[in-house]
Amino acid sequence: MRRVFSSQAIQTAIEKSLPDLQKIVGNSSVRTQESVRRQFARDESHFIAPPPAVVLEPTNVEQVSEILKLCNDRAIPVVPFGGICISTQQIIGDPVLREQDFVCSVKPSTTRIALNDAIKNSGLFFPVDPGADASVCGMVATSASGTNAIRYGTMKENVVNLEVVLADGTIIDTKGKGRCPRKSSAGFNFTELFVGSEGTLGIITEATVKVHPRPQFLSAAVCSFPTVHEAASTVVEVLQWNIPVARIELLDTVQIQACNSYSSLNLRESPTLFIEFHGSNEKEVADQTSAVEDICKSHEALDFDSGASPDKRATLWKARHNAYYAALAMRTGARGFTTDVCVPISKLADVISETRSDLDEHEILGTVVGHVGDGNFHVILPTIEEDKTEHRKIQSFSDRLVRRALAADGTCTGEHGIGLGKRKYLREELGENTVRLMHTIKHALDPNNIMNPGKVLPEL
Amino acid sequence: MRRVFSSQAIQTAIEKSLPDLQKIVGNSSVRTQESVRRQFARDESHFIAPPPAVVLEPTNVEQVSEILKLCNDRAIPVVPFGGICISTQQIIGDPVLREQDFVCSVKPSTTRIALNDAIKNSGLFFPVDPGADASVCGMVATSASGTNAIRYGTMKENVVNLEVVLADGTIIDTKGKGRCPRKSSAGFNFTELFVGSEGTLGIITEATVKVHPRPQFLSAAVCSFPTVHEAASTVVEVLQWNIPVARIELLDTVQIQACNSYSSLNLRESPTLFIEFHGSNEKEVADQTSAVEDICKSHEALDFDSGASPDKRATLWKARHNAYYAALAMRTGARGFTTDVCVPISKLADVISETRSDLDEHEILGTVVGHVGDGNFHVILPTIEEDKTEHRKIQSFSDRLVRRALAADGTCTGEHGIGLGKRKYLREELGENTVRLMHTIKHALDPNNIMNPGKVLPEL
Repeated sequence: MRRVFSSQAIQTAIEKSLPDLQKIVGNSSVRTQESVRRQFARDESHFIAPPPAVVLEPTNVEQVSEILKLCNDRAIPVVPFGGICISTQQIIGDPVLREQDFVCSVKPSTTRIALNDAIKNSGLFFPVDPGADASVCGMVATSASGTNAIRYGTMKENVVNLEVVLADGTIIDTKGKGRCPRKSSAGFNFTELFVGSEGTLGIITEATVKVHPRPQFLSAAVCSFPTVHEAASTVVEVLQWNIPVARIELLDTVQIQACNSYSSLNLRESPTLFIEFHGSNEKEVADQTSAVEDICKSHEALDFDSGASPDKRATLWKARHNAYYAALAMRTGARGFTTDVCVPISKLADVISETRSDLDEHEILGTVVGHVGDGNFHVILPTIEEDKTEHRKIQSFSDRLVRRALAADGTCTGEHGIGLGKRKYLREELGENTVRLMHTIKHALDPNNIMNPGKVLPEL
Repeated sequence: MRRVFSSQAIQTAIEKSLPDLQKIVGNSSVRTQESVRRQFARDESHFIAPPPAVVLEPTNVEQVSEILKLCNDRAIPVVPFGGICISTQQIIGDPVLREQDFVCSVKPSTTRIALNDAIKNSGLFFPVDPGADASVCGMVATSASGTNAIRYGTMKENVVNLEVVLADGTIIDTKGKGRCPRKSSAGFNFTELFVGSEGTLGIITEATVKVHPRPQFLSAAVCSFPTVHEAASTVVEVLQWNIPVARIELLDTVQIQACNSYSSLNLRESPTLFIEFHGSNEKEVADQTSAVEDICKSHEALDFDSGASPDKRATLWKARHNAYYAALAMRTGARGFTTDVCVPISKLADVISETRSDLDEHEILGTVVGHVGDGNFHVILPTIEEDKTEHRKIQSFSDRLVRRALAADGTCTGEHGIGLGKRKYLREELGENTVRLMHTIKHALDPNNIMNPGKVLPEL
């Protein structure tokens, strides 16, 4: 069933198609210069990919449709890296806010921060915050999440309508053009099917997302614990008491050391929770804070600092956002290998403790940091790419971590997605029949397998 | 593409299959008695359907799988009414609560109230409340919603994992057997695809749903307004102020009259909001109440009664739940024709006002009642089925209402689903391409079109 591409045949097909592609998007939007192509061959991760043969920069959905029609007819694969790459960054347009309906529609050029800047006078904000200033449409495709998900949900819970171009060039609106009722039971739930499909089912050319009233009062707390187990147990109890924390992030001792060094802080070097509270008045925020403080103290908290000024709060969250770079800075010349398991809350404390012990036992340099309110945590492993022995050691650690998460009824990926590297876990996680259903759906929507081929779906 | 069934051929195929079906589920679970079959030919609505030829009562998922394999091989349609009917009521088992993870898994026999009874000692509850005591798995298939959705979401937001039997008998778990992480980006989001698929894509044999901490404090308020427009505008403003009301329901003058009469109340006969507040302490609930009171008063509220005792509160919500029967009781021998549009909040006040005027202008007896916090409202029209002229008049009214909702960027159905009657609106609402995608998915999952054929999908 899977179409096999010969790279020579693809190269020839792409070269032959260049004049037609130039007709669709204009000469200057067909980019074959090596410098441009190389920009599309790497991201922040340790992965290296071949540069695409050509980068196309369509400026509207109709051009995306025509490109896909052509690629589908000629069996040219459309991929983010390698092959033919469609950059949607030039599909521009101002965000369209529908203030009373708490939704905003954005084109692919709009990033998370640009969206928030555009609506800042409305008193509303878009909460999903994966750290990086990603394109909102890209966040849809990758099902982004981040520190705020515990209170505001992930992308899946925040997308209400999508314009998507399918493999054959068909343009659809998942809920109907321009529609944004708060609920609907009309037809199949296609919006969620495209969220997190990682380019394998369609290209997202417009997203209508939920925006939320900006909290009128914020406060933050930092609290350190003698062990990661106590820190994680605190999180479990905060959830059980139904305290609507906006963020609750765990940084283990090694991560705190890295942040202290990278962001010039002097936090106590032990497992620490960063917590943020949102409320519509000061009392509400104060009540949440003191309720969480009580829980922390019952879990042997070493301290509880909730008196941060807005400036200090900003410093802390910037340090949290820079945790990845801080971890990398621990080792000269290292790039990051990052894990991303998510487990049911009841298993969180044990799985994190076992993971920390595993790192220590195998003498692997790694930091634990995560969105523990969702049961999701990352181990950031600064690695030297060329060291094959180390790479194998880290890969074994990562395998053990995933198996531990799966044994705990969790998932191999809470928010980073499957891509290439995690396809091998999907059969074990979802079961053979669900993997087959993925292929059935993929084949129905993309019979020529041109959309990001080889990604997400494990081999049959 | 659509398979056409000859009813004679189906009848013959079913008769020939009876011995095999008896082997699968046992003789006593193949029910051909007319009295049993007739129970499956009606629901609460005004629709009448032919009774099924046979009702099967499998007791486990494997039997459902074998039945579907047989039906798929022999092209026997599986439908809720008419044809062959698979009742999942005998697939029994106690709800399995995972308290720390805030999820509970239920078999098809478990109803909403049974689920809440089973977990009542945990301090948790399942919030989705469509009024009727429906099977939770059935609520998944129909994407049920109801009065609590404004705070707790609809079924779509409350299902975390599903066991589903596909048309060919394949059993899948949408997120992997037994898994319940709070978030995951592993593979396609199939859970949502089956929510609201109305039996056209698979049969749900187990659902793992979210359960929430039961609010420790509740209070209610009743507030009446001079016009539906003012009542609806109040709702819009409550949302804008981000007050987390648990329910906010509108009953118009005619509905209040009906409730007064049916439930022996003496509410002021004008458009009225029933509001419920949930909180973790008394102050929180009191703050919400007074904030809403201020908004009501700024919209010319005629009164605001928030002093209800728990008993009186129960009486009010019972009256709300019985609104449908109260409306029917206004007219002897009537059955209910119910509409179900949902519009963006910004359009709600206008659309409700226009709808009320439409009823009055055409002298149609109907009540307006709805989950206005979601922009969703129903018009309940007590009708005499045999009166064809009246039926046409009501159908025209319903068409106008749907078109009004679609023009306002809303949907023809907020929570009741498409079934047969609303297929005609789906193309206008979703667009031709999205309807075609529905067919693509349907054909991929059910190539022989045996799963509830003819429902949900408009003809191509």
